[in-house]
Amino acid sequence: MKLQTPRGTRDFLPEEMAKRQYVFNTIRNIFEKYGYEELQTPAIEYEDTLKGKYGEEEKLIWKFEDLGGRKVALKFDLTVPLARVMAMSPNINKPFKRYQIQPAYRCEKPQRGRYREFYQCDIDIIGTAGMAADAEIITIMVDIMDALNFEEYVVRINNRKLLDAIIERAGVPANKVIEAFRAIDKLDKLGIDGVRGELKNRGIEKKAADKIIEVIEISGAAADVLKKIERMVPKESEGIKELRELFLYLDQFGVNLKRCKLDLSLVRGLDYYTGPVYETVVTKPKIGSLTGGGRWDKLIGKYSGRDMPATGTTIGVERIIDAMSELGLFGKIEKTKVRVFVAAVSDDVRSDAIKMAQKLRAADIATDFDLMNRSLRKQFEYVNAKKIPLCAVVGPAELKEKSVVLRDMKSGREEKVKIADLVKRLI
Amino acid sequence: MKLQTPRGTRDFLPEEMAKRQYVFNTIRNIFEKYGYEELQTPAIEYEDTLKGKYGEEEKLIWKFEDLGGRKVALKFDLTVPLARVMAMSPNINKPFKRYQIQPAYRCEKPQRGRYREFYQCDIDIIGTAGMAADAEIITIMVDIMDALNFEEYVVRINNRKLLDAIIERAGVPANKVIEAFRAIDKLDKLGIDGVRGELKNRGIEKKAADKIIEVIEISGAAADVLKKIERMVPKESEGIKELRELFLYLDQFGVNLKRCKLDLSLVRGLDYYTGPVYETVVTKPKIGSLTGGGRWDKLIGKYSGRDMPATGTTIGVERIIDAMSELGLFGKIEKTKVRVFVAAVSDDVRSDAIKMAQKLRAADIATDFDLMNRSLRKQFEYVNAKKIPLCAVVGPAELKEKSVVLRDMKSGREEKVKIADLVKRLI
Repeated sequence: MKLQTPRGTRDFLPEEMAKRQYVFNTIRNIFEKYGYEELQTPAIEYEDTLKGKYGEEEKLIWKFEDLGGRKVALKFDLTVPLARVMAMSPNINKPFKRYQIQPAYRCEKPQRGRYREFYQCDIDIIGTAGMAADAEIITIMVDIMDALNFEEYVVRINNRKLLDAIIERAGVPANKVIEAFRAIDKLDKLGIDGVRGELKNRGIEKKAADKIIEVIEISGAAADVLKKIERMVPKESEGIKELRELFLYLDQFGVNLKRCKLDLSLVRGLDYYTGPVYETVVTKPKIGSLTGGGRWDKLIGKYSGRDMPATGTTIGVERIIDAMSELGLFGKIEKTKVRVFVAAVSDDVRSDAIKMAQKLRAADIATDFDLMNRSLRKQFEYVNAKKIPLCAVVGPAELKEKSVVLRDMKSGREEKVKIADLVKRLI
Repeated sequence: MKLQTPRGTRDFLPEEMAKRQYVFNTIRNIFEKYGYEELQTPAIEYEDTLKGKYGEEEKLIWKFEDLGGRKVALKFDLTVPLARVMAMSPNINKPFKRYQIQPAYRCEKPQRGRYREFYQCDIDIIGTAGMAADAEIITIMVDIMDALNFEEYVVRINNRKLLDAIIERAGVPANKVIEAFRAIDKLDKLGIDGVRGELKNRGIEKKAADKIIEVIEISGAAADVLKKIERMVPKESEGIKELRELFLYLDQFGVNLKRCKLDLSLVRGLDYYTGPVYETVVTKPKIGSLTGGGRWDKLIGKYSGRDMPATGTTIGVERIIDAMSELGLFGKIEKTKVRVFVAAVSDDVRSDAIKMAQKLRAADIATDFDLMNRSLRKQFEYVNAKKIPLCAVVGPAELKEKSVVLRDMKSGREEKVKIADLVKRLI
């Protein structure tokens, strides 16, 4: 038997987990600060629940069978399960602000940075169509990027309704609109000429393609871009109205507007978006999008027959962790949470060491001691390998004085501390 | 399409998640206080990794196929994946004290309290054969039961080596020992006559069965039981020696020995145990075991060819959560983590409300405000439904005085607070 995890899946040993938990906890704390509540859904969904929701990505769904032969699949993202939950529990208090931190599964071809099992951190707001909700989501994305110490990044923002209007005005027939979306979505990967080729391959006429290209090349400050685009689509267009409102709210939320870039070429791949779409991109080095989301007002209705407004984002934690490693943003994480190791000088004081460790633990001080009856030298080697900052050294002579020697493992400095004072000293 | 989660799987809505996180966090904090470090492994393992490890339980493994047609399975517990990790990374610093909090998957028949997807919380110590390790695991189990406010419970303790010796001395041939284990394991479910029947059905002769029954019926304080059993198996038996040492260590760890019951009928189902076995049982009401574990010195060697001593336990969090609900131990959990809701009296102050909410959030105060432009009355209804304790009411008149009205939603008491003092007031 070859010892390995299945392709595209990974073990996370403690050093790696410490980094991951730092990222998860930072994100979770921000979610909770904004009043979001946690939801968890199963790893497994009935295949019917996932089918017909994602568009082209759907080929990546990992399917198998339930015991009774029913078709099931591993969950592909955290949005569709939320839509199912909302359809099953439509009377949850609105707005329902939920967060979810769980793995999702995709049958990706093995390649750097793509995993078949990967964590996502999602927030969504269900029950309000107002742009304040979209603005809050974007604000939280910026807060998270700042809290994780990313420096060079922007939030790209667009609106599917505006894209619709642009594509329609360009003369693309209704049944080809989604094809145009998919072509534009390739801009990052293929460049402008690539998009031109994609549009052609997907059956969009040259005249229409030219008009689309003209629009998606517009760039500049949000207000300027909106002014230019207003000349090309009706001013009262819902998409433009939503974008104006969104930027107004972002200002009220106190977001640095230099971070927010109106980008008419942004599509976001998934089929279920209906309004604003947004993603966070690290600009230096070019890592690609670390978060991505948008409004998905029509998805819950696919389950319940009754639409319910919804907007939210995925935080791509796996990419964030990779990017943070690359950018050296994990500098300050401790290798261990253990504060003190109780070392026994000799066998006759081992039971005293156990008792002392228990006393410290009872005072909520993370403590370890030697379970292997090793020599003091070996104990120190272990403590240094584990990077535990302090040692409380228990010896027969000190015990008689009701003391221990407290050793700072980094400086090597030692001092005698009364056992009665030890807890107070370490808290 | 019928809206549901696959059989034996569940959604956890926020109110349920708050309870679950309380349990997970309590357990995690105790693990970390004792110096355990986190490991995560994939939900999916190659089928080969799981096969031949569990004994009879193996029929419950949920199998399917990888993309390339390779046989994979959902992980069945957290012990076998740890054994695989240790075989792949044998040089991890010893003792390796790891904890793991993740779901496992079993094809259980749907029944109350049995799920196909369920969380486990495991701790194990790898690299030391000494009984201090087993004692630390049991100590942690007791700490967790106490921290979760369970009152009527005991830890049942036994030793597979002693059971081996007992069964051997009873005259059971070597190839039937595991059958005898499985029969004894049914004592809780079937009673003593049931075990007698099981022993017979599994081909164990009446004379041997009588001797086994005689032993497993011995009860009393650990020291007394050990004295009685010493007359029946060789005094120098490894199992007895380990049990004596284990109880000595438990005393040094400061565990209340009244909680610890030496129970010669305890087997613990899984095949991989080799030494001490232990479980926690709530005695009133009779809920069954909430934790279960033991020593598994021979499992890592099945992967690497080189045995590595290991001991540890699973905390059955799903049963713990069910038991805590039944016993009313979730009394004190807040329905929301939001401390204050910023309410706008009228439309003209909504942007001020947003800014104030952002100011409070920037000071790490969990805050919400109205994303839906609702009337003050509707906002209060929302706040009450969510059980948010405080409202900061923003109105035009108060804003002129640079103040807000802070309302305690429970008592209805209101007071005017200067905006400049609000953060200080709420921290």
